[in-house]
Amino acid sequence: MIYFITGNKNKLEEVKAVLPEVEQLDIDLLEIQEIDSKEIIKKKLSEAFNRAEGEFIVEDTSLHLNCLKGLPGPLVKWFLKTIGNDGLAGIAEKLGSSRAEAKTIIGYAKNHEEIYFFEGVIKGQIVKPRGESDFGWDPIFLPDGHEKTFAEMGREEKNKISMRREALNKLSEFLRAQE
Amino acid sequence: MIYFITGNKNKLEEVKAVLPEVEQLDIDLLEIQEIDSKEIIKKKLSEAFNRAEGEFIVEDTSLHLNCLKGLPGPLVKWFLKTIGNDGLAGIAEKLGSSRAEAKTIIGYAKNHEEIYFFEGVIKGQIVKPRGESDFGWDPIFLPDGHEKTFAEMGREEKNKISMRREALNKLSEFLRAQE
Repeated sequence: MIYFITGNKNKLEEVKAVLPEVEQLDIDLLEIQEIDSKEIIKKKLSEAFNRAEGEFIVEDTSLHLNCLKGLPGPLVKWFLKTIGNDGLAGIAEKLGSSRAEAKTIIGYAKNHEEIYFFEGVIKGQIVKPRGESDFGWDPIFLPDGHEKTFAEMGREEKNKISMRREALNKLSEFLRAQE
Repeated sequence: MIYFITGNKNKLEEVKAVLPEVEQLDIDLLEIQEIDSKEIIKKKLSEAFNRAEGEFIVEDTSLHLNCLKGLPGPLVKWFLKTIGNDGLAGIAEKLGSSRAEAKTIIGYAKNHEEIYFFEGVIKGQIVKPRGESDFGWDPIFLPDGHEKTFAEMGREEKNKISMRREALNKLSEFLRAQE
């Protein structure tokens, strides 16, 4: 059995849409202080094997601002908690570059030794918050080639182009190739 | 025996100056992703008891910018690694407030249950880098009431007024009261 470790319903739905066979495992895993998502994921997968049996999927989604040389990256949640989307948009504006990348890295572990990573990246820009969303920074991310922020798009519209979907598709291909 | 857990010589010297009886223990402890230093310290102390015997001291020093509502806090090392002191000074300038706080929190654990915290805070402002230093953001921190950045001060001059010294003095008083 493959478990996707998350407490987030939206993320679970996105995963299930591509990999219906995957089950949710809602346990809290320690998040280490790192700006390399793979290191964060590796540590979580290693903890997962100590707490449950099966194969595991862990994802990390990060927001990288060019004006901050790639920060806040996986640390974005602390920015949301303190300065919020308005604060993040203000930084991009005042530092003079709105360019950004939204990135999802998925780690899939068959066992302690075999860990595979799959990446999805969407380039775009940081704009003043537009649209309602329960997904953190969706209101300020405007993907290139689109006129709506992630928050202004419907769930389905967003999921079609999202960095999470891209990473999931790569994982899906990998799993199908092994069958 | 009380061990100060650090790999940093400068910090060890600062501690030894106030508490000569303390010994160094140079082990790597996991740093969790948090902006509450006490949570980071608690986790480290708990790990220490699983790896060694004795009483332990762990410190966390953080830099809080008013223009970022207290960020980066304990996450400051990632800012130094990516945008550096110039980048941090640029943020303060462009976001329109140079006010900042430098904070040290020391956690002292006699055992798993008894943990005590001691805090030192210095208010000041973020300026363009001045002076050489091997202590991360010392070149951009100008403490209130002084004309030199931490990096421009001699080691002794800085240690006398530092937030780490303030926290150490509180710990020292606490330990002496117990003797």
